[in-house]
Amino acid sequence: MRILGIDPGYAIVGYGVVDYAKNRFSAVGFGAITTKAKTPFETRLADIYNDMLSIIDKYNPDELAIEKLYFNTNTTTAIDVAQARGVIVLAAHQRGLKISEYTPLQVKQAVTGYGRAEKHQVMEMIKSILSLKAVPKPDDTADALALAICHGHYSDSILRR
Amino acid sequence: MRILGIDPGYAIVGYGVVDYAKNRFSAVGFGAITTKAKTPFETRLADIYNDMLSIIDKYNPDELAIEKLYFNTNTTTAIDVAQARGVIVLAAHQRGLKISEYTPLQVKQAVTGYGRAEKHQVMEMIKSILSLKAVPKPDDTADALALAICHGHYSDSILRR
Repeated sequence: MRILGIDPGYAIVGYGVVDYAKNRFSAVGFGAITTKAKTPFETRLADIYNDMLSIIDKYNPDELAIEKLYFNTNTTTAIDVAQARGVIVLAAHQRGLKISEYTPLQVKQAVTGYGRAEKHQVMEMIKSILSLKAVPKPDDTADALALAICHGHYSDSILRR
Repeated sequence: MRILGIDPGYAIVGYGVVDYAKNRFSAVGFGAITTKAKTPFETRLADIYNDMLSIIDKYNPDELAIEKLYFNTNTTTAIDVAQARGVIVLAAHQRGLKISEYTPLQVKQAVTGYGRAEKHQVMEMIKSILSLKAVPKPDDTADALALAICHGHYSDSILRR
């Protein structure tokens, strides 16, 4: 199964493509879509949508794992992250990907086995699980890979049931 | 100038198309895009996106006027409204519409001349300005027409400067 993990945002969208088979993960490709602050917001949304389609067409993943959004303090940012998430989900749905969403807690638990793991521990586990030489940068990219790994674990446990 | 007003949502998206010239408004078409609660959210987003493209292709508006989102109590709903707004703005941008956003206060002031006007007063003004026999239903549709009227007034005042 090929999984596309996405850490949603409007300035930086982290992505990570991971193959998962027989309890083993391998990284296929990862990076980040970025948009510039001075660009009109509608253009940023269109850029994210178009880049999402390009990434899906390049890697041909079967499923999308994306972070579930919650609201904290910065609600103005949260509205715009949610708008970006809308066009990301639209692109994935149009390309026929099955879509699953996970909370940050679920991701931490799936990757490290411990919901209160610190960020650097999650990062080190991603590096180890995917046999990478370094922790991927930016953090959004590492978070996207963590989402893909999380989805592999969850889909496994669903299949076993 | 032909204006498409949109009241964003994910269960109901109100729309209203209005022609504005020489300080006079006329209604071209209005209604609501609706999606069903039991449908997967990504399918609802895709339905809204496709219906938006159909409405734009049918009426060929020059500009989009859409409500600016703020957060109040129901943040879970707000995330999903914002995601729907993202695909609405994407569709309008892809069809080349100029996009403007207005707060509910700006809309009330533009339509009734009074920011603290009550909802039914706004509704009656829409009916009167557009020479309609009845207040359009649902409220989302009336709100969308109010956004279009608001944009006409604002663009006028911008041109006069």
